[in-house]
Amino acid sequence: MSDLQAIDQYLQQSQPKHLDVLKDLLRIPSVSADPAFAEPVRTAAQSVVDTLESAGLQTRLIETQGPPLIYAESPPVPGKPVALVYGHYDVQPPDPLDLWTTPPFEPTERDGNLVARGATDDKGQMLTHINSVAAWNACGQPLPMQVKFLIEGEEEVGSEQLEHYLAQPGISEQLACDVIVISDSSQYADGQPAITYGLRGIAYFELHFDGPRQDLHSGSFGGAVRNPAIALSQLLSKLIDEQGRIQLPGFYDTVEPLQDSEREMWSSLNFSDADFANQLGVKALHGEHGFSTLERRWARPTYDVHGLWSGYQGEGGKTIVPAKAGAKISFRLVPNQSPQQVGQQLRQFVQENTPPGIQIELIDLHGGPGVVVDPNSPFVGAAHKAIELAFGKPPVLIREGGSIPIVAEMVERLNADVLLLGWGLDDDGAHSPNEKFRIEDYFRGIRASSHLWHQLAQL
Amino acid sequence: MSDLQAIDQYLQQSQPKHLDVLKDLLRIPSVSADPAFAEPVRTAAQSVVDTLESAGLQTRLIETQGPPLIYAESPPVPGKPVALVYGHYDVQPPDPLDLWTTPPFEPTERDGNLVARGATDDKGQMLTHINSVAAWNACGQPLPMQVKFLIEGEEEVGSEQLEHYLAQPGISEQLACDVIVISDSSQYADGQPAITYGLRGIAYFELHFDGPRQDLHSGSFGGAVRNPAIALSQLLSKLIDEQGRIQLPGFYDTVEPLQDSEREMWSSLNFSDADFANQLGVKALHGEHGFSTLERRWARPTYDVHGLWSGYQGEGGKTIVPAKAGAKISFRLVPNQSPQQVGQQLRQFVQENTPPGIQIELIDLHGGPGVVVDPNSPFVGAAHKAIELAFGKPPVLIREGGSIPIVAEMVERLNADVLLLGWGLDDDGAHSPNEKFRIEDYFRGIRASSHLWHQLAQL
Repeated sequence: MSDLQAIDQYLQQSQPKHLDVLKDLLRIPSVSADPAFAEPVRTAAQSVVDTLESAGLQTRLIETQGPPLIYAESPPVPGKPVALVYGHYDVQPPDPLDLWTTPPFEPTERDGNLVARGATDDKGQMLTHINSVAAWNACGQPLPMQVKFLIEGEEEVGSEQLEHYLAQPGISEQLACDVIVISDSSQYADGQPAITYGLRGIAYFELHFDGPRQDLHSGSFGGAVRNPAIALSQLLSKLIDEQGRIQLPGFYDTVEPLQDSEREMWSSLNFSDADFANQLGVKALHGEHGFSTLERRWARPTYDVHGLWSGYQGEGGKTIVPAKAGAKISFRLVPNQSPQQVGQQLRQFVQENTPPGIQIELIDLHGGPGVVVDPNSPFVGAAHKAIELAFGKPPVLIREGGSIPIVAEMVERLNADVLLLGWGLDDDGAHSPNEKFRIEDYFRGIRASSHLWHQLAQL
Repeated sequence: MSDLQAIDQYLQQSQPKHLDVLKDLLRIPSVSADPAFAEPVRTAAQSVVDTLESAGLQTRLIETQGPPLIYAESPPVPGKPVALVYGHYDVQPPDPLDLWTTPPFEPTERDGNLVARGATDDKGQMLTHINSVAAWNACGQPLPMQVKFLIEGEEEVGSEQLEHYLAQPGISEQLACDVIVISDSSQYADGQPAITYGLRGIAYFELHFDGPRQDLHSGSFGGAVRNPAIALSQLLSKLIDEQGRIQLPGFYDTVEPLQDSEREMWSSLNFSDADFANQLGVKALHGEHGFSTLERRWARPTYDVHGLWSGYQGEGGKTIVPAKAGAKISFRLVPNQSPQQVGQQLRQFVQENTPPGIQIELIDLHGGPGVVVDPNSPFVGAAHKAIELAFGKPPVLIREGGSIPIVAEMVERLNADVLLLGWGLDDDGAHSPNEKFRIEDYFRGIRASSHLWHQLAQL
């Protein structure tokens, strides 16, 4: 029996154990956006440390001003490439809670899926790589190359501590690698695995509109003062036109046009707008005119409002001119767009569009640039083989609309290539109620990862 | 000692008792907008019944499908006019709770004011008339005219039950009167009492925008679907232009222009925009171009957003395309505008402006027309004398921007005149946190009311 056969057999036998490891981690509500969850965030970090140590890795918990970072490594293998696995143990807030069929932090098996907040994003996907290293170890076989792990706890809120850490002296040397491996995205479709060669960036803001000192009776005062909720609506509307074009001056200046080869490759994926609309429960899709849905999602910048609040939200009718209104908004960016520059453009736009009688505060919540790598690298070739073996089908080459802001930062600082290997599915509901991860894909991901170390070691 | 002197003396002695009666009623959280408060709403009704009975009135609690109505009357006095006092024992919701200095339902004396939800709107103002009748009774003097009371418990949510009641056979006869007396508004200014001869109407709606079936990851899906929060912002923006003109087709068709005499009378009130802006805590006022602030507040229709909600409102950044967005909005109407017609205009506007990919639901919450009466009637003359005596200054004639939707209904059904005698102040914060009623004005209101019965009996 070859080394790889032994590992495959071991993986087959260890499926119940691997499922338990994931469930244990999913039970910890490590919501990084809300300070009330600081304690479970720490608990999750410690749990990941324990899992890395049982995988036979030298592991360190690194204290920061926020959630701890985790670093782990296997022994160096001279002459072989070095991989750095990046992942995160924090999750999005679970609300709206009433839309979950089962509680978000009680992982539940349903229809072949594991349902829980963080199942696919990113606890399940991250664990595939830890489990694969554990498998080599458990089979008594040294990893054929060095694998390092860098796991953080605030990916969902902007990776601030990791950014500080990367900038410290000596850290780039410690993390030195040939390729960064990340599983925090999706396959192209059910039954069609993919390798992702591009991510969008993001620039995320919170807007506060302040009008009168306090809520006013809208009868006695309506018509006298500017209504902050209307003023906010007007500003949010002005940011985009009916053709889906973002109205910040200069916003598109650095946007690189799509390559013909990309447009062709993606149009051959036979994406169905009708099926997609049906999947999302909308009667029509919508976005920037002149681009296909995949192009809009993967390679065009976008503007979204994520949250909106003002005045009375309870039952019945309360007749006030509200004192305040607020919104959370972001722009998804494509490679070559700078979040800082977009922030400046927005700040200027907001100042120029602040009506008299309203005070506006613009808070820069987080941001990070997008990234695109060479779809023809040898690393992509190695991943192609590992994925084809584990998933039974060759992967297609796609880009992803989501952002992992720290990826661009790591790629630049470590001067490394990057492999984005998504084991999830489009309808996994990352960031939504009833987030899930297909249990079979979790096992396939572990197997693909085990073979990836073998394939990369052949380069 | 004349009858009136005896009553004045009694009122002076009874101030502590009158304050206690008000405090007791303010402790009952009779919030009509929220079904969770149904029980305290009933308790408040019973408390008002008790107070009317101790004032020596024949009193009845009238059961309805909602909060009970209350009817009371003193004995008929042949040859003298009949007055019907209207008031309400329900209050606006107290939120935002964190902006109250003391709890909304623990009435607190502060700087000469009584601070509590409902202090001015309308528990305190309503009680002035019950206390004045009680004073005549306590002094062993029969009221010189018949005074009837009609008190309801859902003024803040649209007076639906009272509207049904008024339509029942025999009720117009029971309520027959020459003049309706209502204290649910404000003096013109501190130290300047007023008689209000006009009220605006209202048409109040709730809007629901539904997009994708559930919240979507704004990275993976942003750019593919219409964002309900942006679509809602766009619709709310489209309803009004930069000149403050409401954009519903036909909206202004029935609006009566202001009389020159009114514009002159109000401009002589020396209203200061700068002081008003300062009072409200805004740097600039805003409203329909071409009208003064008083004209805009009292005699022009307006549009306001009272509540706004969508997606994630917690701390930090959640990256979703929200599944839903919603708003509460209303239009204040001037006499001759119909809330039903405005509702139709809005429904059509919403339908014509519903973008593909969004499902819209428009809910008609409540409405009522405005009302204007003759500022030169003998009833106004009688009230003028009573107010001048109690407040030490002759009242000015104003209109009010707020709505008491049922007033127009009663005026029409009972074919009666109406006296709107506001004892409150503009900055009392009706519908706002820290609502208050100046204790001295409460006592003055009771005295003015006592004298009003005397003055009306002279007509």
